[in-house]
Amino acid sequence: MPKATFIAITGGVGGAKLALGLARLLPPGEVTFVVNTGDDFEHLGLHVSPDIDTLVYTLSGESNADLGWGRRGETWQFMTALSRLGGPTWFRLGDMDLAMHVERTQQLRAGARLTDTTRTLARALGVDHAILPMSDAPVRTIVSTTSGELAFQHYFVRDRCEPTVTGFRFDGANDAELTPEVIERFDDPRLAGVIICPSNPFVSVDPVLAVPGMRERLARARVPIVAISPIVAGAAIKGPTAKMMHELHMPGDAAAVAGHYRGLLHGFVLDAQDGALEPAVAALGMATVVTQTVMVTLADRVQLAEQVLHFIKRFK
Amino acid sequence: MPKATFIAITGGVGGAKLALGLARLLPPGEVTFVVNTGDDFEHLGLHVSPDIDTLVYTLSGESNADLGWGRRGETWQFMTALSRLGGPTWFRLGDMDLAMHVERTQQLRAGARLTDTTRTLARALGVDHAILPMSDAPVRTIVSTTSGELAFQHYFVRDRCEPTVTGFRFDGANDAELTPEVIERFDDPRLAGVIICPSNPFVSVDPVLAVPGMRERLARARVPIVAISPIVAGAAIKGPTAKMMHELHMPGDAAAVAGHYRGLLHGFVLDAQDGALEPAVAALGMATVVTQTVMVTLADRVQLAEQVLHFIKRFK
Repeated sequence: MPKATFIAITGGVGGAKLALGLARLLPPGEVTFVVNTGDDFEHLGLHVSPDIDTLVYTLSGESNADLGWGRRGETWQFMTALSRLGGPTWFRLGDMDLAMHVERTQQLRAGARLTDTTRTLARALGVDHAILPMSDAPVRTIVSTTSGELAFQHYFVRDRCEPTVTGFRFDGANDAELTPEVIERFDDPRLAGVIICPSNPFVSVDPVLAVPGMRERLARARVPIVAISPIVAGAAIKGPTAKMMHELHMPGDAAAVAGHYRGLLHGFVLDAQDGALEPAVAALGMATVVTQTVMVTLADRVQLAEQVLHFIKRFK
Repeated sequence: MPKATFIAITGGVGGAKLALGLARLLPPGEVTFVVNTGDDFEHLGLHVSPDIDTLVYTLSGESNADLGWGRRGETWQFMTALSRLGGPTWFRLGDMDLAMHVERTQQLRAGARLTDTTRTLARALGVDHAILPMSDAPVRTIVSTTSGELAFQHYFVRDRCEPTVTGFRFDGANDAELTPEVIERFDDPRLAGVIICPSNPFVSVDPVLAVPGMRERLARARVPIVAISPIVAGAAIKGPTAKMMHELHMPGDAAAVAGHYRGLLHGFVLDAQDGALEPAVAALGMATVVTQTVMVTLADRVQLAEQVLHFIKRFK
């Protein structure tokens, strides 16, 4: 019998934790990561892909556990020297991380697609699992705030998520296309489920869903689609999700995240701390699992991945 | 009485040593450095200006005395990471040095001239002396060798000057122009002399002289033009000058360097070890000084600069 395959849609640090758990359970042929590129940007003339790099560093064991982002053993000599030259320092590029952006930019300029260069760079760091950008065309998340529109990294890093959010748009999404590689994974007859990792729904997952054809592929796949709540006990494990929900006048809880995905999901994974929300999620027509979702150790990551795969099997 | 001003034409490490001596003796308004950009190149998508940076680092006290090139306290994390990604490693860019290339490239892309960005970057590192690229337009030294034509850095760094040289050309020189800043320094009525630093005549000084109008300005300036031999006792202090002379079937001595500049120079500075060559240089119609030209200490640099300025005064 052919093995089952899975697609996992993920953003940055939170999603990458579950992705690591999945990668420990499933060999490269059996899980494909489709990654948000809405927070990609050009900085210092370099193409920076923060979510792709977070996943590459996480899966290769290169991620910086102390910082919670960037590379293990990273140094900052470049930034110190750039600062002295009066260059912009609001987005910190480590000396080792910089190699990724320089080499990616070179490959893109030489005509490679982001899908190609992502594969090349990931393999160079020993990652054999498929990491697919959601699209090769640029899609750029723009955050609408009460102080105007902000490019995502200006909102997220430069302004430290301080502006009050009123909405989002995804510049370029209308001209983006699914890549042949993403289509191939959706068309795989072995496809057994789609996992939406515990990432920010507005700025990590929605950009992926905004690529024309993505929602249709998800619907036509006729496999269970499940998400893991990035909100636990009314707070985001990491990042501005809860703050955004508050500013968008939504209840800041896991059930509201499920509601945001209504019509898309068949199942939703709630943290044990949010067991009381299970009826509200069930009322949205979703199956539920209540379990430990906060991932501190590697064992936590693998255990949650196991639970999610088990959850998907329940739909058969 | 208005102060005298000087122009010093220089290439990389050897020339920068004398330039430092001159900068210690003369305040910023009184000496201008016109620098070879024939060894500039695009690498990893960055505009690298090796001779300009050597001078900026030397004058700012940022140069790496141990390596003999690059920056003090330099680290190589970027190169190590780039190597792991399969990127090109034949040209080593230090983490701090990289900031210079990234910031320069950004400023050039934003429309700055190389002259502008050089001033901005030099000032950021505390250098107030004027460092002027020989031209803002790209001029690229191409080395003809018995194994074909090589871009300068391929010859110099990648192939470690191993190929046998048959000649040189300066791509783009015909379309290059003197900058308003260089012209202004030549037109300064206080101009009292031009110094050709002890740099490689073929690949450091000749590219400067190849910029249309440069030789005419030198001739019309009607001030003493003196050079310091980069060859001492038949060997180059640094770099491939002597090897090139041999391959070009020239005598590999200081007198041959003087001969190379025939018609341009009024005076030539020989090392004490080459006193026997003085008649040969004098026979070219040049005044001579024989002195200690090997610069090991800072005092050596200042002392040679003093001798050169004194030599120029003799022509009055």
